[in-house]
Amino acid sequence: MGQDYDLICIGSGPAGRRGAIQAAKLGKRVAVIEQGRIVGGTCVETGTIPSKTFREAVMNFLRVRNSGRRRGRGDVRPAAKDLLKHVSDVVERETDTLEQQLHRNHVDVYHGRAVFTDAHSIVVHERARTERLRAANVLIACGTAPAPPPDVEADGKVVITSDQVCDLQSLPRTMAVVGGGVIGIEYASMFAALGVEVTLIDKRERPLEFLDREIVDELIYQMRSANVTFRLGEGVEHIEITRTEPRRAAITLESGKHIVTDLLLFSVGRMGCTRELNIAAAGLNADERGRLTVDPEFRTAVPHIYAAGDVIGYPALAATSAEQGRLAACYAFGVSNDGMAEHFPIGIYAIPEVSMTGATEQELTKARVPYETGVARYREIARGSIVGDESGFFKMLFHRDSRRLLGVHIIGTGATELLHIGQAVLKLGGGLDYFLQTVFNYPTLAECYKVAALDAYNKLSICTSVSESGVLRRAG
Amino acid sequence: MGQDYDLICIGSGPAGRRGAIQAAKLGKRVAVIEQGRIVGGTCVETGTIPSKTFREAVMNFLRVRNSGRRRGRGDVRPAAKDLLKHVSDVVERETDTLEQQLHRNHVDVYHGRAVFTDAHSIVVHERARTERLRAANVLIACGTAPAPPPDVEADGKVVITSDQVCDLQSLPRTMAVVGGGVIGIEYASMFAALGVEVTLIDKRERPLEFLDREIVDELIYQMRSANVTFRLGEGVEHIEITRTEPRRAAITLESGKHIVTDLLLFSVGRMGCTRELNIAAAGLNADERGRLTVDPEFRTAVPHIYAAGDVIGYPALAATSAEQGRLAACYAFGVSNDGMAEHFPIGIYAIPEVSMTGATEQELTKARVPYETGVARYREIARGSIVGDESGFFKMLFHRDSRRLLGVHIIGTGATELLHIGQAVLKLGGGLDYFLQTVFNYPTLAECYKVAALDAYNKLSICTSVSESGVLRRAG
Repeated sequence: MGQDYDLICIGSGPAGRRGAIQAAKLGKRVAVIEQGRIVGGTCVETGTIPSKTFREAVMNFLRVRNSGRRRGRGDVRPAAKDLLKHVSDVVERETDTLEQQLHRNHVDVYHGRAVFTDAHSIVVHERARTERLRAANVLIACGTAPAPPPDVEADGKVVITSDQVCDLQSLPRTMAVVGGGVIGIEYASMFAALGVEVTLIDKRERPLEFLDREIVDELIYQMRSANVTFRLGEGVEHIEITRTEPRRAAITLESGKHIVTDLLLFSVGRMGCTRELNIAAAGLNADERGRLTVDPEFRTAVPHIYAAGDVIGYPALAATSAEQGRLAACYAFGVSNDGMAEHFPIGIYAIPEVSMTGATEQELTKARVPYETGVARYREIARGSIVGDESGFFKMLFHRDSRRLLGVHIIGTGATELLHIGQAVLKLGGGLDYFLQTVFNYPTLAECYKVAALDAYNKLSICTSVSESGVLRRAG
Repeated sequence: MGQDYDLICIGSGPAGRRGAIQAAKLGKRVAVIEQGRIVGGTCVETGTIPSKTFREAVMNFLRVRNSGRRRGRGDVRPAAKDLLKHVSDVVERETDTLEQQLHRNHVDVYHGRAVFTDAHSIVVHERARTERLRAANVLIACGTAPAPPPDVEADGKVVITSDQVCDLQSLPRTMAVVGGGVIGIEYASMFAALGVEVTLIDKRERPLEFLDREIVDELIYQMRSANVTFRLGEGVEHIEITRTEPRRAAITLESGKHIVTDLLLFSVGRMGCTRELNIAAAGLNADERGRLTVDPEFRTAVPHIYAAGDVIGYPALAATSAEQGRLAACYAFGVSNDGMAEHFPIGIYAIPEVSMTGATEQELTKARVPYETGVARYREIARGSIVGDESGFFKMLFHRDSRRLLGVHIIGTGATELLHIGQAVLKLGGGLDYFLQTVFNYPTLAECYKVAALDAYNKLSICTSVSESGVLRRAG
């Protein structure tokens, strides 16, 4: 009959792993099934961790290059293997940590492919062996995989998906990125920082529409300064690999434009990895992109089967996925919890880094919430000069009347870390006065909070005095 | 009769400048008197800004060296001028910003030496010219200067004070730092990171006693690993400069030990720069270290004369000094304010960086406040591996019963920035649950908050269950 579990998690990425550990901490018998080479899922193997480690290597290259420039030395071009060397170390280390964590919490780990035979039964195909497992509850956290490019196969050399970036043997001179989602933007900006001529193609008129528009404008502006060409509102009609050496990618756009490039990164969406799970046997259906729909408690159409992480769609970020997995386990075992935090953070590890939490200006305008902005530029604060970031931009949104903080939007060095100061104030109900009264270490980037708060304070004071003098009231 | 002002600030460092701007924003006529070459005080000219810019250059050197090591290259030794080149750019930029800020707020700036003639009258000696000014209120924010070394003169080559570090023409092979205060510790750790053999001498048994003891232990441990020799509890009996070339510093300790070194940094305390102000004419006295005593409203013994910044002593950090200056101006003009924030941050830019806010374990133990610790090590979190910080250490203190946050103590990369997340939670009255329920960007160092909170939660749960089973109660 095989093993009986209280919870089986399909996938050991952030959602599956955190779900498993939460259930184990509740004293439940838990198994995780991982079909990849290592535990951790895409996050550790080919996604978040490798790309962020690669990014750190790029940033170090830039620091060296910039200090070399100060010393009057010419530009150097780094080798791909130098940039990627550190990646395997970090991946290995992270895998070790995760394995130990699962082991310490007595979570059984099966390496193999999971296939439902009914709503409570899963077979694990592990090379020649198969294991039959039964579960009172299931958490589908199988993640997503890059959608394959049309017309050609991703050969890992001329045409690649994001899974293959960290296997590159050399840096291209020119590169096209098809798809301006988070992954496409991140890699486009990193390669551009290395001096690669990058063309980014997206059929939408604007990338990253969930971000505040001013931040996206700033990001596009800075990426253009780094020599990225944007082809927005342009669909791809055809892709092929040239037959003569050196082989290159030839892209025909619907507008008739023709682009020939050393490397093509295809990053148009990701597909939920549900196809091989035989979810039909469990009574489930995925949408056309392989994704599952869940209710606010992360329950699928079948009440004891939960889903979390990338497979349920937006925001599909490691941090939120982990929290979804944890909450799914809480709901499965009737443990009270506060549900998904309203103010989760979004972090985009492009160059420059972007992070936000709370509402955007567009959302507030649409909802007719009166707000004022407070902005700071890194070049105005000492730490910005010290780290050499002249272009960082920082914005907070405050309610005009209550002065409560409504949103934080940052683009620049350390954005993903800095954001959490504002997130705490947002969640704990603080506002403008908190920032006006708080002492920040000097010199830090955190001082942006103070400078932006003073900016908002001045704007609000001027408006108040104008309004009191009757000008605005008459105009209104 | 000369110019009449509502407020005259003596000194344009963080305290004087912020006091001046606050008063100007209240519509007051304000002047600043600066005797240094540039506005900004020690903070900009020889202190905070130059030392933090130097530190950033050291960190960049370390990043390059570490990536070179990975590539199997041997160690290189940087040139002093390469490390210090960026300093003048940053200082110039910061000075420009400050000058503009004063100008924009219509603050008159006098360059010269201020001398009281009575409690309301100040003469500014500006080369050949003198200006006579009258003030309804005065803010003494004249700062401090390094105490001079005994026996010998600081020649800027073999024996230096902290004012002269950024004028060094070459890196020494060996160095002694006399005085383990914030400045001594910061420079000792920076030079050690560059491969200089550093000996740190202090007559106290423990440096930085205002910090949490575990953090200081960790700092000393890491500095020792970087080849710093600590001579604690050792007084200096005599210092001389050898007469033969190359000239070196010879130090005799009270214990009879003898140290000969390429460079001696003398950093035993700083003296308030009150001596030349003729404060007696205003009816004031300084203590034996030139410092002034103030009440909680930053008022000296003479009611309309305020003092703020380094000249009033601990903590003597740029950020707190600025806030003191601002508050002094508020009190001077009867503007309501919340007084000095209880939870100001302390930031020490050593390598590794240290920051804290709230209470230390020692303070809580002394006050008999029951607490539990939650700790995280950078090596446990993904971002730690990515940035290559294996030794970072993070600790929060929570009240055992209310679970309120009581203190945050960090040593490692980005400590001074990271701290402000905890500071917000502390000030807004949040606690353990905030961190347990919050989603942090992944991978960030901010995740330490989550990991440390889980650690505290587990410890508290175990204690609760043991206590409920009666074990602790019986033991009690």
